[in-house]
Amino acid sequence: MTIQPIKWGNGRLSLLDQRILPGKERYVECRTYREAAQAIKKMVVRGAPAVGITAAFGVVLGAQAVSARGKRYFLKRFENICEVLAATRPTAVNLFWALERMRKLIENNCDLSSVKIQELLQSEALKILKEDVESNRKIGSFGSRLLKDGDTILTHCNAGALATGGYGTALGVIRAGVDQGKRIQVIADETRPFLQGARLTSWELKKDGIPVTVITDNMAASVMQQKRVDAVIVGADRIAANGDVANKIGTYALGILAGEHHIPFYVAAPISTIDFSIQTGAEIPIEERSSDEVTHIHGRRVVPRGVAVWNPAFDVTPSRYISAIVTDHGIVKKPYGKNLRALISR
Amino acid sequence: MTIQPIKWGNGRLSLLDQRILPGKERYVECRTYREAAQAIKKMVVRGAPAVGITAAFGVVLGAQAVSARGKRYFLKRFENICEVLAATRPTAVNLFWALERMRKLIENNCDLSSVKIQELLQSEALKILKEDVESNRKIGSFGSRLLKDGDTILTHCNAGALATGGYGTALGVIRAGVDQGKRIQVIADETRPFLQGARLTSWELKKDGIPVTVITDNMAASVMQQKRVDAVIVGADRIAANGDVANKIGTYALGILAGEHHIPFYVAAPISTIDFSIQTGAEIPIEERSSDEVTHIHGRRVVPRGVAVWNPAFDVTPSRYISAIVTDHGIVKKPYGKNLRALISR
Repeated sequence: MTIQPIKWGNGRLSLLDQRILPGKERYVECRTYREAAQAIKKMVVRGAPAVGITAAFGVVLGAQAVSARGKRYFLKRFENICEVLAATRPTAVNLFWALERMRKLIENNCDLSSVKIQELLQSEALKILKEDVESNRKIGSFGSRLLKDGDTILTHCNAGALATGGYGTALGVIRAGVDQGKRIQVIADETRPFLQGARLTSWELKKDGIPVTVITDNMAASVMQQKRVDAVIVGADRIAANGDVANKIGTYALGILAGEHHIPFYVAAPISTIDFSIQTGAEIPIEERSSDEVTHIHGRRVVPRGVAVWNPAFDVTPSRYISAIVTDHGIVKKPYGKNLRALISR
Repeated sequence: MTIQPIKWGNGRLSLLDQRILPGKERYVECRTYREAAQAIKKMVVRGAPAVGITAAFGVVLGAQAVSARGKRYFLKRFENICEVLAATRPTAVNLFWALERMRKLIENNCDLSSVKIQELLQSEALKILKEDVESNRKIGSFGSRLLKDGDTILTHCNAGALATGGYGTALGVIRAGVDQGKRIQVIADETRPFLQGARLTSWELKKDGIPVTVITDNMAASVMQQKRVDAVIVGADRIAANGDVANKIGTYALGILAGEHHIPFYVAAPISTIDFSIQTGAEIPIEERSSDEVTHIHGRRVVPRGVAVWNPAFDVTPSRYISAIVTDHGIVKKPYGKNLRALISR
């Protein structure tokens, strides 16, 4: 069964509502760029590549509404639309990458009519979606070489079909391994506070018939100690030029724990996730989300009123903890600074 | 304000219901040893020392009901009562320690009448409760030497007043530091699945006016990376003769993460938690609790039906990760095998 988290048709964007999975499979329809921005912010859709794709369609929705009103107005509004979409979530670079791609398209076609440009923007968003799935299949193809028959893979958060246009990055590697006939089983961290592992990763792997066991985040070290984990594979929200990786909070701990147990720690991401404009992970802005996500579960308060909480959505894993970065252009190993650069210039 | 998780009066045991804190402060009354056993099993009361104390009162409740029926019957029933109480939770050794203490009392007084023995059992349970609070104050007094003014202490689960007769082990160390005028703040891991950190540790520290911030378990590495943690202090459910420590799941990860960030990692526990009958942590039985605790939160399913989960309640931290063990007899450092033994023989 193919999972489609992002669908486009009849000038409308449909997003599989990831806040209510696995209980309900329901699509949220976005008719305006502001609705798309809200969907990103409220995590109807999440995952770096999926956020980028949604933003691209958000631009299409925005452009659609103003393309009939003349080019000058169109171009002015376009900047504003991009700003609103860019302000939704700060960490995943794919968001800015997708918006930049839409902006470049306009620059290269500024002599065309706004209606024509609007058509091009729609084609471009569809292309970004299609390319993302192709990228994930390439990541899967490269990454699956790292997996052996019988392996148990620990993953964190959801870097699957739901986090992308489809197929997934980290879960794409696992899917590709399974497609090759390898018997792979998965351990999924539940991933508090949003429970992407418990709710989403388990849901999509179960749909594909890939055996999955959910653990709470604090159990990962113990299952490693018991030698139940052969490799860790996670996705990425932004990769600095030196190979430092921002990803869902808890990833950094897994990097350390995997190292301590001599378990390879892999990051799977398309090259659109690499941000060559920043040298190290220290420069990556880390989103702090609402304290409600920690203080309340299913609407019920678990932390006493008046007690402080922190809720950073991401952390940075220094590249020294990473055994390999699996991209759609190939597998990169240390030294990452040199080898990531070489990957792009190829 | 003094928190009393375990109260005894009029031949009845009252336990502060830790399943519903911080929302409601309600005591559960136990009138029979079976009710006491259920309260331990269902985690109305939890924490190694508190479980031991509750078991001792469970014996009193059981003995109370049969003391009028002649000594032969009394002694036969006594064994059965101990068996039921011992079968509640396998990991915390304080449970078996407390039952053994009650058993020894009977052995040493087998010439007395069953009514008289029953009175002695009640005195002994009250003594175990009183001694536990005194032990915790000693642990606090020794351990607070390890804390500096201005320190931020990360703790896991709840090793506080609620986990003991009162005052707490890990939180006792923090309370003693605060009592000495040191400005201490606490970071509490929420501690999935039962949320002891989010619900209990934060609740009791807030009552005492000690600043506390709750984080999800997977944030601990990130706050350490940001140099926001000066020391980690946790409790223990069982300590092997070599210093390996069984404690709430997630403790082992913290031991590794603290080491990686050059942060001292302390364990605080009374000597009743040390089990000299086992040489290493590998021999400690680890309780696997119901999968419902992971698959459901507040009655709502978060893990899809048909997906497997694991739910070990504890893990074992090898002694090499532990900077010091703070006991009621003093602070013990490496080599633990030799130094724990020396502590007891003093």
